[in-house]
Amino acid sequence: MIALPDLAEIEAMDATDPLRSMRRRFALPEGVIYLDGNSLGAASSDVFDEIEKAATREWAHDLIRAWNTAGWFHMPVELGDRLGRLIGARPGQTVVCDTTSINIYKVLHAALAMRPDRSVIVAEGDSFPTDLYMAEGVASTRPGTVLRLEGVDAPTIEDLIDERVAVILVNHVNYKSGRLRDMAALTRRAHQAGALIVWDLCHTAGALPVDLDGSNADFAIGCTYKYLNGGPGSPAFIYGAKRHHDDIRQPLSGWWGHARPFAFEQGYAAGTGIRRFLCGTQPVLSMRALKGALDLWDKVDMNVVRGKSIALTDLFIRLVEARCGAFGLELESPRDGAERGSQVSFAHPHGYQVMRALIERGVIGDFRAPATIRFGFTPLYVGYRDVWDAVEVLEDILRTGVWRDARFAVKTAVT
Amino acid sequence: MIALPDLAEIEAMDATDPLRSMRRRFALPEGVIYLDGNSLGAASSDVFDEIEKAATREWAHDLIRAWNTAGWFHMPVELGDRLGRLIGARPGQTVVCDTTSINIYKVLHAALAMRPDRSVIVAEGDSFPTDLYMAEGVASTRPGTVLRLEGVDAPTIEDLIDERVAVILVNHVNYKSGRLRDMAALTRRAHQAGALIVWDLCHTAGALPVDLDGSNADFAIGCTYKYLNGGPGSPAFIYGAKRHHDDIRQPLSGWWGHARPFAFEQGYAAGTGIRRFLCGTQPVLSMRALKGALDLWDKVDMNVVRGKSIALTDLFIRLVEARCGAFGLELESPRDGAERGSQVSFAHPHGYQVMRALIERGVIGDFRAPATIRFGFTPLYVGYRDVWDAVEVLEDILRTGVWRDARFAVKTAVT
Repeated sequence: MIALPDLAEIEAMDATDPLRSMRRRFALPEGVIYLDGNSLGAASSDVFDEIEKAATREWAHDLIRAWNTAGWFHMPVELGDRLGRLIGARPGQTVVCDTTSINIYKVLHAALAMRPDRSVIVAEGDSFPTDLYMAEGVASTRPGTVLRLEGVDAPTIEDLIDERVAVILVNHVNYKSGRLRDMAALTRRAHQAGALIVWDLCHTAGALPVDLDGSNADFAIGCTYKYLNGGPGSPAFIYGAKRHHDDIRQPLSGWWGHARPFAFEQGYAAGTGIRRFLCGTQPVLSMRALKGALDLWDKVDMNVVRGKSIALTDLFIRLVEARCGAFGLELESPRDGAERGSQVSFAHPHGYQVMRALIERGVIGDFRAPATIRFGFTPLYVGYRDVWDAVEVLEDILRTGVWRDARFAVKTAVT
Repeated sequence: MIALPDLAEIEAMDATDPLRSMRRRFALPEGVIYLDGNSLGAASSDVFDEIEKAATREWAHDLIRAWNTAGWFHMPVELGDRLGRLIGARPGQTVVCDTTSINIYKVLHAALAMRPDRSVIVAEGDSFPTDLYMAEGVASTRPGTVLRLEGVDAPTIEDLIDERVAVILVNHVNYKSGRLRDMAALTRRAHQAGALIVWDLCHTAGALPVDLDGSNADFAIGCTYKYLNGGPGSPAFIYGAKRHHDDIRQPLSGWWGHARPFAFEQGYAAGTGIRRFLCGTQPVLSMRALKGALDLWDKVDMNVVRGKSIALTDLFIRLVEARCGAFGLELESPRDGAERGSQVSFAHPHGYQVMRALIERGVIGDFRAPATIRFGFTPLYVGYRDVWDAVEVLEDILRTGVWRDARFAVKTAVT
């Protein structure tokens, strides 16, 4: 086993980190180690500049004309292409719009319509729940559609794939454990059975490289407010492989997806390409925050991000186990970095209180019932010294038992 | 006939305008008379302050905690109630979320599910088109559903109302002509036939008072970026009368509408009340822009807005007809202020060129094919002198024929 690094070695790792200069762009508060960028990414000066420009210059000055002069109308496609580079999508296959939930609805409808003789949607019992709720919603509009779940109807998702399956909706990285799926292999397995596959990339985009095109994926959806740092509730995205574009039919057929949106025709005529997934007028200011965030990503190599992500999460696991191992923590994430997204989860019987104590001390992660404490590592603004310091705080909290204090016991909503 | 006012009288009208002080809050550019607030409302310092606070203080400082500390999660309901006051909705019946198109989808599904033995949706052939496109989308998921249109299947909407009709989707103010419907009368007529009614208030909210509760309306939807000045693409709203809340079933069943969104349950369980219309995570920065805009509306009496709106539009019609009547303009809006929203449309055989010439001279209205020039009058920031000056420019353009210049002939997308 490799010896644990000491503080001098940790600082040397930061000093040679190729992403070190990115950190300055983020507006992180003093005294905080932010390990919840997998829930809401941090704010950057690039974002502040973009929204100020959009509001006080474009909107205030150009008014209605800004839809053309500032290119607002084209942002879903323009930002989609830029985001596409980070997820292995060639241009013209990704649009930014609406919410993850709504995009799941569109894409499941489109996939079911492409497999009219099949009636099964396969998903994961431990999926982030809104995926399942939206699949239920889709099924409610298509009598006979059946939702079958990994962990409920069979032990693995592979067990559920057969010739009745129209579409598989699957998370690339599990939101709770951080476990990673093999995109190419599962996509191949789906296609062998004649099924389509939709990849949920909420915990992937900006966290690690994926190759949607190279994996032959059919569709993907995801949010932009986690690792991409687009801002709270920033618009989501949707990817559709080019080979499917002419077959996309989805019922959220609003005017932004129309072939001639400004002709004001009575009947719907679907536009071409990935624009078929657009529906209504998009929230420009939130979209512009995302544009600011993507300006920053344009300069980033996802392989460098992945290298640092694995180094950060490996280091965290090793330090926690070496220094806090006696206090009842149990690793819930895969130990092998190749099987893990950019987060680490531990179970602790009093995880809720432990996390509240951590947050009070400035180490922000989050808690997922019943017993998971979850830490996200965002390589653009988290450094090795942050990992070291976070573990010091965690060790202190566990060793002193301060988490038993009554002030940490009250349960309130945690998002 | 009353004599036309002269410039001194116009200025006196501005001097005694009870809404005069509101204008200072808006960031209108020099040299522009903005008569397109019915398409995109103007920016205000209140909005700039709100988005800066949300981004640089709440998001940047509180990070994930801001969902609770800054009340982000509750904004759809909080802003819904504040907007509700402007449309005659008591608290607990309005939420701000998603887009108008998506809200139409939800509400038509909910209405159809409440009338399972009926299969007809009635709408208007000259509706803003996305309403029809979304109705088509809903119908595509419910085999047997028929869309019948005023102006296509019968001359008036009343002719189409019979015992086969599940729901009527109708614009309170027509986007092109500005013609106003009688909300109480048409709602009564719908209910007599056992149908439900959905009011599209895109050109109503912030333009004139309506009384959804008092009219016994069932549902309403609308946008917030026109007269309410919430910013480009700011989130839309949806109203559902309290008596229907327990019956609301709609397939965009995302986690924000769940009874226990943070319990991460596998199955969907609809929440209570109007929250059933919520779906996914909302764009907080755009939502906060709207909050800034509503801060300003909180101080406004809609009856005062309506009084000024009628005075502005009456004055515009009278001045245009007196000074430009010889140049081929024809009034397309109702002459009687009581039958008109807060806009005035004229037809001109070369309307496109005339509008481009107006915009070049700083008078911003818009054009709707084939021949409509459209002017919106937003009482919070448009004054009587603006009306006078706009007509001077229009008269000059028509008298000199400058609109015939080649530079106004090129047709580009107009939103």
